[in-house]
Amino acid sequence: MAYSVAPLSRLIDQFARLPGIGRKTAQRLALFVLNLPEGEAEGFARCILDARQQIHRCAVCCNLTDEEQCTVCGSAERDHSTICVVSDPRDVLAIERTREFTGVYHVLHGVISPMDGIGPEQLTLKQLLARIDDTVSEVIMATGATVEGDATAMYISRLLKPMGIKCTRLAYGIPVGGDLEYADEVTLGRALDGRSEM
Amino acid sequence: MAYSVAPLSRLIDQFARLPGIGRKTAQRLALFVLNLPEGEAEGFARCILDARQQIHRCAVCCNLTDEEQCTVCGSAERDHSTICVVSDPRDVLAIERTREFTGVYHVLHGVISPMDGIGPEQLTLKQLLARIDDTVSEVIMATGATVEGDATAMYISRLLKPMGIKCTRLAYGIPVGGDLEYADEVTLGRALDGRSEM
Repeated sequence: MAYSVAPLSRLIDQFARLPGIGRKTAQRLALFVLNLPEGEAEGFARCILDARQQIHRCAVCCNLTDEEQCTVCGSAERDHSTICVVSDPRDVLAIERTREFTGVYHVLHGVISPMDGIGPEQLTLKQLLARIDDTVSEVIMATGATVEGDATAMYISRLLKPMGIKCTRLAYGIPVGGDLEYADEVTLGRALDGRSEM
Repeated sequence: MAYSVAPLSRLIDQFARLPGIGRKTAQRLALFVLNLPEGEAEGFARCILDARQQIHRCAVCCNLTDEEQCTVCGSAERDHSTICVVSDPRDVLAIERTREFTGVYHVLHGVISPMDGIGPEQLTLKQLLARIDDTVSEVIMATGATVEGDATAMYISRLLKPMGIKCTRLAYGIPVGGDLEYADEVTLGRALDGRSEM
């Protein structure tokens, strides 16, 4: 007869369903939470509930926010004529970390992927098209450099170009610090295509 | 101005404090929880609260349980004359998985480690000594094969031997499937010492 405690097993199951967390790690995390000082495990539970209740999509860019509009869309310091289209809220965080981009975002919440049953209608394209007016000068496609990311970027650019909007795509190439030797041939080919004068 | 959402940041912070979870993984986990179907994030939060409220130490062996006694201590099918001393509830799960051990456990909740300020009085030694009576025939030291684990096993055996209790220690040796070539010299030395006749 194996030893088991129902509330502990349930907590382990909950951790084990998180992405990238296996059975053993889930066990370690569950026991860690059990051993937290008084009140802190409750704080963890409360954070989950708060996040779920308070966070929703920004009315403009569909990024996650706890207000009507996200801090980027609501800022007068940002350049609202340049929209950067990304697939995921994490991509916004990644681009913000560069401190290079001063425009605004649009979060698709996915990429077109027929294999997973995700078509254009599952993305936030309607909201994107609703934002496009004379004040928008450029839409930057910043979806991932995957087949699905490329297809999504292509699909959107075909929607926007007839409207007279300039569509651009992030550059492909060797990652900074990367060795030529270790770059795959597709990346290297794209880097050659995209070479610039020095 | 960086994009940030307070409830999301707090949730990411909570995940990031878990052992082995870095900042990026915490971000991924927090967004995964946010995207869970209605009610399931609440279920996760509830599991944390339930586990904290319902789980406590078994009155006999100090293992985690949601009842007065754990299922092992409460079972008539287990051999209550053999006590296996481990440092952590996870070790009980590991030994149960072997399906070889039919005795009962005692969970120390740590090992003696002066560097971390953990002395014998922080462990559940008082509860272990209280369990020792004429019915106990053997105490197996199953603490880890580390300096602290060894020291703890040695400490406990010195307490129990004068009481006429047989104390044993898990075997040291080459792990099954392990190659001699890759075994460190200390393990190999212990494997030689512990060799058995064929």
